[in-house]
Amino acid sequence: MALWDGRFRGGPADEMLRFGESLGTDLHLWREDIAGSKAHSTMLSQVGLLTTDELNEIHRGLDLVATELAAAEAGQPGGWTPGIELEDIHMAVETRLRDHIGELAGKLHTARSRNDQVATDVRLWLRARLDLLDSELAALIGVLLDRAQVDGRVLVPGCTHLQRGQPIWLGHQILAHAWALSRDRERLSDARRRLNRCPLGAAAMAGTPHPIDRLHSAGLLGFAGVVENAMDAVSARDHLVESVAACAISMGHLSRMAEELVIWSTPEFHRVRLSDSWSTGSSIMPQKRNPDAAELVRGKAGRVFGDLQTLLVLTKALPLAYNRDLQEDRPPLFDAISTTRSCVRVMAGCWADLQILPGPDLDGDFLLATELADYLATRGVPFRQAHQVAGGLVRRCEERGQNLASLTLSELTAAHPAFGADALAWLDPAAAAERRVSRGGTAWSEVIRQVSLLRETLLGE
Amino acid sequence: MALWDGRFRGGPADEMLRFGESLGTDLHLWREDIAGSKAHSTMLSQVGLLTTDELNEIHRGLDLVATELAAAEAGQPGGWTPGIELEDIHMAVETRLRDHIGELAGKLHTARSRNDQVATDVRLWLRARLDLLDSELAALIGVLLDRAQVDGRVLVPGCTHLQRGQPIWLGHQILAHAWALSRDRERLSDARRRLNRCPLGAAAMAGTPHPIDRLHSAGLLGFAGVVENAMDAVSARDHLVESVAACAISMGHLSRMAEELVIWSTPEFHRVRLSDSWSTGSSIMPQKRNPDAAELVRGKAGRVFGDLQTLLVLTKALPLAYNRDLQEDRPPLFDAISTTRSCVRVMAGCWADLQILPGPDLDGDFLLATELADYLATRGVPFRQAHQVAGGLVRRCEERGQNLASLTLSELTAAHPAFGADALAWLDPAAAAERRVSRGGTAWSEVIRQVSLLRETLLGE
Amino acid sequence: MALWDGRFRGGPADEMLRFGESLGTDLHLWREDIAGSKAHSTMLSQVGLLTTDELNEIHRGLDLVATELAAAEAGQPGGWTPGIELEDIHMAVETRLRDHIGELAGKLHTARSRNDQVATDVRLWLRARLDLLDSELAALIGVLLDRAQVDGRVLVPGCTHLQRGQPIWLGHQILAHAWALSRDRERLSDARRRLNRCPLGAAAMAGTPHPIDRLHSAGLLGFAGVVENAMDAVSARDHLVESVAACAISMGHLSRMAEELVIWSTPEFHRVRLSDSWSTGSSIMPQKRNPDAAELVRGKAGRVFGDLQTLLVLTKALPLAYNRDLQEDRPPLFDAISTTRSCVRVMAGCWADLQILPGPDLDGDFLLATELADYLATRGVPFRQAHQVAGGLVRRCEERGQNLASLTLSELTAAHPAFGADALAWLDPAAAAERRVSRGGTAWSEVIRQVSLLRETLLGE
Amino acid sequence: MALWDGRFRGGPADEMLRFGESLGTDLHLWREDIAGSKAHSTMLSQVGLLTTDELNEIHRGLDLVATELAAAEAGQPGGWTPGIELEDIHMAVETRLRDHIGELAGKLHTARSRNDQVATDVRLWLRARLDLLDSELAALIGVLLDRAQVDGRVLVPGCTHLQRGQPIWLGHQILAHAWALSRDRERLSDARRRLNRCPLGAAAMAGTPHPIDRLHSAGLLGFAGVVENAMDAVSARDHLVESVAACAISMGHLSRMAEELVIWSTPEFHRVRLSDSWSTGSSIMPQKRNPDAAELVRGKAGRVFGDLQTLLVLTKALPLAYNRDLQEDRPPLFDAISTTRSCVRVMAGCWADLQILPGPDLDGDFLLATELADYLATRGVPFRQAHQVAGGLVRRCEERGQNLASLTLSELTAAHPAFGADALAWLDPAAAAERRVSRGGTAWSEVIRQVSLLRETLLGE
Repeated sequence: MALWDGRFRGGPADEMLRFGESLGTDLHLWREDIAGSKAHSTMLSQVGLLTTDELNEIHRGLDLVATELAAAEAGQPGGWTPGIELEDIHMAVETRLRDHIGELAGKLHTARSRNDQVATDVRLWLRARLDLLDSELAALIGVLLDRAQVDGRVLVPGCTHLQRGQPIWLGHQILAHAWALSRDRERLSDARRRLNRCPLGAAAMAGTPHPIDRLHSAGLLGFAGVVENAMDAVSARDHLVESVAACAISMGHLSRMAEELVIWSTPEFHRVRLSDSWSTGSSIMPQKRNPDAAELVRGKAGRVFGDLQTLLVLTKALPLAYNRDLQEDRPPLFDAISTTRSCVRVMAGCWADLQILPGPDLDGDFLLATELADYLATRGVPFRQAHQVAGGLVRRCEERGQNLASLTLSELTAAHPAFGADALAWLDPAAAAERRVSRGGTAWSEVIRQVSLLRETLLGE
Repeated sequence: MALWDGRFRGGPADEMLRFGESLGTDLHLWREDIAGSKAHSTMLSQVGLLTTDELNEIHRGLDLVATELAAAEAGQPGGWTPGIELEDIHMAVETRLRDHIGELAGKLHTARSRNDQVATDVRLWLRARLDLLDSELAALIGVLLDRAQVDGRVLVPGCTHLQRGQPIWLGHQILAHAWALSRDRERLSDARRRLNRCPLGAAAMAGTPHPIDRLHSAGLLGFAGVVENAMDAVSARDHLVESVAACAISMGHLSRMAEELVIWSTPEFHRVRLSDSWSTGSSIMPQKRNPDAAELVRGKAGRVFGDLQTLLVLTKALPLAYNRDLQEDRPPLFDAISTTRSCVRVMAGCWADLQILPGPDLDGDFLLATELADYLATRGVPFRQAHQVAGGLVRRCEERGQNLASLTLSELTAAHPAFGADALAWLDPAAAAERRVSRGGTAWSEVIRQVSLLRETLLGE
Repeated sequence: MALWDGRFRGGPADEMLRFGESLGTDLHLWREDIAGSKAHSTMLSQVGLLTTDELNEIHRGLDLVATELAAAEAGQPGGWTPGIELEDIHMAVETRLRDHIGELAGKLHTARSRNDQVATDVRLWLRARLDLLDSELAALIGVLLDRAQVDGRVLVPGCTHLQRGQPIWLGHQILAHAWALSRDRERLSDARRRLNRCPLGAAAMAGTPHPIDRLHSAGLLGFAGVVENAMDAVSARDHLVESVAACAISMGHLSRMAEELVIWSTPEFHRVRLSDSWSTGSSIMPQKRNPDAAELVRGKAGRVFGDLQTLLVLTKALPLAYNRDLQEDRPPLFDAISTTRSCVRVMAGCWADLQILPGPDLDGDFLLATELADYLATRGVPFRQAHQVAGGLVRRCEERGQNLASLTLSELTAAHPAFGADALAWLDPAAAAERRVSRGGTAWSEVIRQVSLLRETLLGE
Repeated sequence: MALWDGRFRGGPADEMLRFGESLGTDLHLWREDIAGSKAHSTMLSQVGLLTTDELNEIHRGLDLVATELAAAEAGQPGGWTPGIELEDIHMAVETRLRDHIGELAGKLHTARSRNDQVATDVRLWLRARLDLLDSELAALIGVLLDRAQVDGRVLVPGCTHLQRGQPIWLGHQILAHAWALSRDRERLSDARRRLNRCPLGAAAMAGTPHPIDRLHSAGLLGFAGVVENAMDAVSARDHLVESVAACAISMGHLSRMAEELVIWSTPEFHRVRLSDSWSTGSSIMPQKRNPDAAELVRGKAGRVFGDLQTLLVLTKALPLAYNRDLQEDRPPLFDAISTTRSCVRVMAGCWADLQILPGPDLDGDFLLATELADYLATRGVPFRQAHQVAGGLVRRCEERGQNLASLTLSELTAAHPAFGADALAWLDPAAAAERRVSRGGTAWSEVIRQVSLLRETLLGE
């Protein structure tokens, strides 16, 4: 019998029971639910709504329930797994508590409802996962910094439109990803700060006539404060959307890194070789070293984008306060968080283990044409004009089927008188990269400077 | 050891193994996988690539595996549950088959790859579920037709903007939903027809040198034909997106029905009373009869919309042919189908069991103002002018704090000379509904006509 | 003064006027709106609600309005552009008609409302655009068939995971796209059939007391029938979602083609050379030939996916019948249709003009390893065992830094006794492709067969 | 002739020109583009790459262009509107500058590319709009605080599941929305802080060999710093996604407020009366006062959700650095920002002008049943048991067709001995609300306390 059916005579249909239960999902929240109940009861005792003996007995019972749930989770003997007729984790814990300590269990629900209880559980759960995700992102950034610093001095074509653009050190590109991931951490930190307020004590939506101390229970649970309005406390889900949006943005970043690994590990690009640990073979093509990890990360981006949409749609046009729709917030939340976390870890593993191959031969490559334009610009030729001159030289080379290395000084000076004897030296790819010493440029000194800056963000928090 | 790692020496990382496995999801496909293997091997024997003895032995082994998987699924003794190191259901079945019949199992993979195998499994799975969903939709439509015909002669305000518009029979509104659901069935039928082509024998993407007969295996599996291009066969996922889009559209329809039930079961609207079987109570407010079923249906719409987005994003910009990203197609597919199916069943249950309450008193309600405009229009007054006259009469009533029943004939004729002695009778709500005999109008005869039309679609297919 | 404000005394706020107006979008519908009004008035006259003179005068007035709107659209003199105070295209046309023919204009609105009117306009608009999109898709398919047949006999590596898998003729891959686009056409056709029913005469939601003949006006507008329920007629938007879903699926297909063009036009892959007409340069890197058209197509996929979600969210949980939210259906609809159409045309242009380059050297490439496995399988070796043998040979070659061409017959027979003297010949890439004569395989005969099949679908409809 | 086509001989196809142009969208960026060019050229002069005369001439030219563009925007004489052959706003401004000052214009593009230029323009544009949106949200919150404080002491049923739950002051519910909007402002502020870094000087992706001072130009444009990595500077779009996600979350909040207005303005709920300024009538039902503004806000939520998905999909799996896909970032960005801004303003208008009606009669309403349970709980009865007792009393009243006011003291004490003489007084609705003095409860003192807290957030920033 459900705890709420004092008035109902017909029970729910079996189909409804299966349809409405959330235990399958919420069971993940048992630690938070018990922690919340302990804090709530401690507060109730503090303000005189429970005696010390009652409190001790309730805590003893909750510890028993926790032990049983932990055992069940681990597949060990002595475990207890609630049946779906108990509907949700809150009912399950309270029901089991009653098995252990009798009617006293009923006092635990004084001055709270399932509405504020689940809101508290989810905030506790999410806060802990955001912390884990933050650490995992920091670890991934650490891997990228190591690779950039130790192995990043490989000259590769920086691409726009996937076409060769300018010679860069690979480390420069690796750091671009590291910076993006750093912002992801900032977003998670902002989301965490915003959600770290306790809804407990809001009760159904209107507060309670009991003389509770919400700041006390909030403090016990490590919250920085309380949600100041009881109706907001049970209705708000924006903190979930914000967290999942942060995950979605991060998955976007990971998908870009993953795409690069897929492309770079083709025999055509041949920029990296993935380790056996993070690639797989084929059932019919034995020579394949498939970038499965990267592909799955790329594919899972869609999953988290979908989770975000699910959450947004869920709360669209819901009048206050609690509506049962909101029960559906946890599947997309749990999926988004755990998907993002595993993708971050996998990407760290891939990057830690992959082999960076020597860059392609860029001597004479047309990607150096910009150097010619920049050479002229440094001699005072308006950039647009310089650009036209360089374009003409490229066309001449193309027409005779040769590359830029075929250009002679006399051809250069014929194309524009500002070309001097040092112009040909500008066509050295490594020199071209090293010339770009402007702040944030690809010159190696800038790579090293950024590594230091980013390491500070890893240590500083 | 994975079946593909003849060349690999380092194994996959543990994290990668967990990340890449799809068994948790694909285990649902075991029946289809075994059916596909049986058809494939029968065809191989037909064209001489297996002897009859080999075929029999393979089928015997597959039956054993099926028995074990069925037992595991049912939690019965003798079951076998594959570990995640077997990666996917195809590898699991083949590995287990080898346990039973030895090396002969390896002949089963002749002229196929996992790419065409999984594509076949998913099509078989989806085809069967679309059929079930279609039946469930038909059942829901049947419930709605029954309620419309038997209980639908209740006069309610037809709303636009949730404001009272015109008096209608409730049956008229119920049928609007039934028609929408009928189109959902058409869409499912179109999707089914399009996906009912067999990819088996496409192998990795290029076909096979073995002299197979794809039409034969396709026929054994009940397909209407084959996917004509091997690369398309393993790369295409549009049939999944189409099916999930059809589900999303249907969930949109269900969410509209659900919203109406939520609103209609408020004490303010008081149009329906949900049965105990499909509503729940509250842990702190004992009088509540919450429309949880309807709310959950409404909320789950977001879930299916998200699944659709996940699938679309998944295949965005994937070069042909198979990419590992595609493994991620099943979680959103399975979720969308099973969510939609359960929502359809729940909505049928809700509608079958709810009590339709008497409609509100509409005598004198301003929703009858349109009748005055229509009266004048039938007397040749241009509709826009008639509309202005009616609007003025409404304003007059509002100003004196009374309703339309307070209008006298002399007031009417003062407002416009075309009003005759029969004008006041037009303000009877039931008569107003019954006047709307235009095709598709709310008149009861039209309700009954539509019920018959819709019943034909239920029987005719 | 708005046509509906007989009762209102305060006008809408200026902000509200701008917020609520849809003219900016709906102006695109003026042709359909006038066509609908002509059909409606013809029917009104047919059933005696207008005299022939009134009908002629109304049609004359509508023609005048049409002439003025056409002139304004073309930026020619004599044009008339409605101001936003007229709110929507229906009010604009009717108001302008009144300027031309006086109060008689007010009779046009007999037995209809804006709800059924806009529903009719949008269906007319969409039906015509789906037809155009279908033709454009057929043209794109035609281009692909031409390229496959004429230029497709280039040997390229068929990829899975973007890794080299098996040698295929490029035509085989081109046709995979053609088949996908063929299904897109089928989906559009199904959507068109379903939406081709006329809502006109549904009036606000309940039908009308006037003796109208809905089948007559439906026939005049080329509809195959009427929407049978008046409430459904004004509330349903599933036909829009279905059409946009079909566009989204097609954009998914185009994005896959686009991604391939981006990758294939890199210097590393060097498979195609885009024409100047469909690529652009760079402001700073003069040598670039950027695949902008393909990139934009790829990017615009997201736009149509977003439009689809917008539409789905829009109708989520809307009670029947018309709600003002529904006005927001046109921006995503119009955007999705026009975006998809232009992407199809652009992709046809790209493919028509690009140069297919000679394929890479595949002799000795590890992608031929599958041939060794298949060779053994044709000699009766269980495929899994054959696969292990081939994998071992690949590893041996890799270890000595050589490719498959380095294998000798004695090495083969040492690896497995079933290897015969003809085994080495299996390692010829073109022969490997040509061996795959199974239905849908890459053999050239299959390419040609499919071209014929697909040409029939282009002609047959 | 485009500025980049020094090498190209065939021009782009007409279709491609229309397809690729972004001027229609980017024209909105002209102020930012000119501001960016002024800052860039000032910096170039500062580091010696332009003479003071050159700088003055460039600024004079840019001012001329700005004057012309402003005139065109305002539809005034002397305006200049670029044709689409100029492709984008950057090319347009530079081309027009050359018309005014000749070849010197070409020096402006030294040490920058369109990639960093557009990134700078968009950040400037967005930063300014986030500030406007923040002010508009603050204004809306201000309206809500005024209504809560001045008119919020109306007793209404607080709802869960849209069912009556507990009596609350309407102000309590209004404040729940105000708190949610306050968090929206926090999110915008975080997004603003994160995006307020200058990409200018990143050039194409690798920095520049010219001795530029990026901090100087950043400072001139009011940025708090620079984007530290040039490749990140031109590739990153997470700041756009974050801003649009913040808008989407806010639209979710507005849609909930809108839904409540729609429901509350029905005759059945009769809680608010919208003013004429923010509602509209009907073309066929003259009595309607439709909550169009609220409905449109609700509907536009889907639009912004769609914009967010468009942006996420756009950047999925894009390799670094710039790809042309990214041009598609502005339509969803511009739409999301301007849609959200107008919805905030409209909602402020609605709430400022609406009339709050007296609440319904709650005496004896079953929503007071919780009071009975709470009464018992304050007397030490375990809450679960108290809940069962209250549920039984509700059932008894329901069975005899009466409400809670029909309960006598003897019935109460028969149901549970802990009921005392003061129990019946607990059934007064206003007293019930006032008893909930727990922090965040509905008691009026808590409403007032929160108004003060929220006013501080409005003033404090």
